[in-house]
Amino acid sequence: MLKEIAEQPAALEKTIREEREKVSSLARFLKSRDIDLIVLVARGSSDNAALFGRYLLEIRTGIPVSLSAPSVHTLYNAKLNFSRALVVGVSQSGEGEDINLVLENAGKCGAYTVGITNEPSSSMVELVDEALLMHGGHERSVAATKTYTGQLLLFHMLAYALSDGEKLEYDAIPDYAARALGKRDEIKELVERYVFMENCVVVGRGIIYANAYEFALKLMETCYVVAERFSSADFLHGPLALVERHFPILMFAPPGKTLSSVKVLLDRLKELRADTLVITGDEEIAGKASRAILMDGEINEFLSAIPYIIPAQLFAAMLADAKGLDPDAPRSLSKVTRTL
Amino acid sequence: MLKEIAEQPAALEKTIREEREKVSSLARFLKSRDIDLIVLVARGSSDNAALFGRYLLEIRTGIPVSLSAPSVHTLYNAKLNFSRALVVGVSQSGEGEDINLVLENAGKCGAYTVGITNEPSSSMVELVDEALLMHGGHERSVAATKTYTGQLLLFHMLAYALSDGEKLEYDAIPDYAARALGKRDEIKELVERYVFMENCVVVGRGIIYANAYEFALKLMETCYVVAERFSSADFLHGPLALVERHFPILMFAPPGKTLSSVKVLLDRLKELRADTLVITGDEEIAGKASRAILMDGEINEFLSAIPYIIPAQLFAAMLADAKGLDPDAPRSLSKVTRTL
Repeated sequence: MLKEIAEQPAALEKTIREEREKVSSLARFLKSRDIDLIVLVARGSSDNAALFGRYLLEIRTGIPVSLSAPSVHTLYNAKLNFSRALVVGVSQSGEGEDINLVLENAGKCGAYTVGITNEPSSSMVELVDEALLMHGGHERSVAATKTYTGQLLLFHMLAYALSDGEKLEYDAIPDYAARALGKRDEIKELVERYVFMENCVVVGRGIIYANAYEFALKLMETCYVVAERFSSADFLHGPLALVERHFPILMFAPPGKTLSSVKVLLDRLKELRADTLVITGDEEIAGKASRAILMDGEINEFLSAIPYIIPAQLFAAMLADAKGLDPDAPRSLSKVTRTL
Repeated sequence: MLKEIAEQPAALEKTIREEREKVSSLARFLKSRDIDLIVLVARGSSDNAALFGRYLLEIRTGIPVSLSAPSVHTLYNAKLNFSRALVVGVSQSGEGEDINLVLENAGKCGAYTVGITNEPSSSMVELVDEALLMHGGHERSVAATKTYTGQLLLFHMLAYALSDGEKLEYDAIPDYAARALGKRDEIKELVERYVFMENCVVVGRGIIYANAYEFALKLMETCYVVAERFSSADFLHGPLALVERHFPILMFAPPGKTLSSVKVLLDRLKELRADTLVITGDEEIAGKASRAILMDGEINEFLSAIPYIIPAQLFAAMLADAKGLDPDAPRSLSKVTRTL
C-alpha cells in the first residue's frame, strides 16, 4: 500500500500524457449530442471517486449529474429514459459485474457509455462506447490508492474538456501529489497518537466531500476503525449529538468556498471539546484544530482532492502498521468484490 | 418521540385523504411537460426520505432521479441545465435555508419546483410552484418520525400518479403502520440487550436502503451510538473488514428482490460470528439471524419502507430510554438546523 501510494505522482503524469487527446475528442463528440444528464456508476473507492466527479462535473459543466443506484438496474430491471444521458462506469478492475450490468442496461436505454478503469483488457472496456484508462500499472493492494487518484484525475480531465466556461488547468496535480508525499515522516509520528482510536467521524464538504468518504473507507478497511463520514453541513443535522469530550473528528479543509462553514463547525467542536485533526492549507483553520497536517496554501480548492487524499492514505497505511496490522491483507476482503 | 411514533397511522391516513387529488393533478400537469430528470433536495431525515424517493421514482416511472448536492448551488452557485427537470425540495419545517436556496436557484435554471413539507405557512411553500403537505400536525420531537413516514408516503403517492405501468396501491400503508406499532412490547424487552452497544452497522438494500440511513440517524441522535449505514452490496466492498465476533449488525430485509443478497450476507456474517438483528417478513431470514423482529410477511417490498421503519423508531426511542437518555432532547441539537 505504501509503495503504491508513492507511485502516484508518476502514475498521474503518465495518465495525463496518454489520455489527454482521447478525452478531448470524446468531449467534442459529446458536445455534438444533446447530453443533459450524466450518470455515474460505481462501488467502493470508485464510488467515492464518482462522488468527486459529481461535484466537479456539475459545477464546471452545468450538466446535472446523478450517482446511480446500481440495484435499480440489477435487481429491479428498471427501464430508464437515458436518451440524452451520458453514463460513466468507474471500476478499478473493470470486472465489477453489477457496474457492467448497469452499463449494458444503460446502453439499451439509449445512453452513451464510458468506462473509467485501470485494466485495458477488462470486460468493462469491451462493453462501453469509449474507455478512459489509468496508467499507473496493476494495483495489488486491496486498499485502492493509486486507482482512486487516477479516477479523480480522469474526472478532472473530462470536466476540463466538457466545460465551456473558465478552464482550470490540471497539469500541476502530479507535482502537488509529489509534495504531499513529503508529509510521510510527520504523519508516521502523528499516527502513534491514534493507535487506540476505535471510532471517528471524517468530515469534508463540497468538492472535498468525496475525500471524507475515501479516508473513512481506508480507515475501516485497513485499521478496523469505525469511521463515519459526513459533510460538515449534514453533520450538524443529528450526528453532532455523537460528539463528547475527546471524540475524534478528522476533517478536510482546503482554502475556498467551504472554509467558512468549516470554521463554524470547528468552533462548535471546540466548545464540545472534541479532538480534531484537520488537513488544510489554511493556517487559521490549522490553529483552531487540536492537530493539523498543513498543506501547500497555494493549491486551488478545485485541484485539492488528489493532493489532500495522500496524507490520509499515508495516515491509514501507517496507523494500520502502528496497530500491528497488515494494510495489504484486510481480513474478510478480496480485491475484486462480486455483488449482483 | 414515542407519542409521535404512535400518531403515524392516523397522520398517514389524513395525508392520503387530503393530498390525493392534488398529487393526481400535479402528475397530469408534469406528464404534459417533457420531464426527463427529477432532482431531490434535502438534508437530515428528509434526505433519507429522498433516498427512498429516488429508488421508488426511478423504478416506477423510468425517469432518472438525482439526489442534489446542495452546496453545488449554495456555495458554488452552479448554473445547471434544468430545462427538463422537476426539482423536489423535502423539509419537515420548510425553513431549511440551503434547501430553499437550491429550490430558488433551480427555478431560475428552468426547473418546475415542488416542496414536500409539514408546515403549510413555511417559506418553502411560498417559493415553490406546488407544495405537497403532510397532515400529521406539528412535530415537536427533535428526532423526526411522523414527518419521515409522511415524506415517504408523499413519494408513494407521486410515484403512483406519475407511473404509466403497473400501479401499486398505497392505501394499505396506514393499516400496516398500525400493526407495526403492535411490536412495541416485544421491542421494549429486546432493547435491554443493546444498552451497552457503542457501535453498530445498519444494512439495507434497494427500496429499503433509505431505512438503514434513517435507523442509523435515529440511533446517533437519540442513543449516541456510532451507527454506520451501508447497502448490503457496498458493505462487502471494504466495511466487512470491521466485523469481528459479536459486532452488531442491524438489517432490514423485506421479502422481495433484495432477499437473496441479504441471505448471502447473513451467511457470511454468521461465519464471522457477528451479532445480527433483522427486521424481516421472511421466516427463513429470521432464522439465520441472531435476533429478529418478525413483520407481516404479506407486505409487498415496495410498500415496506413505512411499516418497517416503525420498529426501528421504537427501538431507538426505547433504547435511549433504557440508557437513561431523553430521546426528545438530544445534546447539541435543535429542531431547525441552519446550514448555508
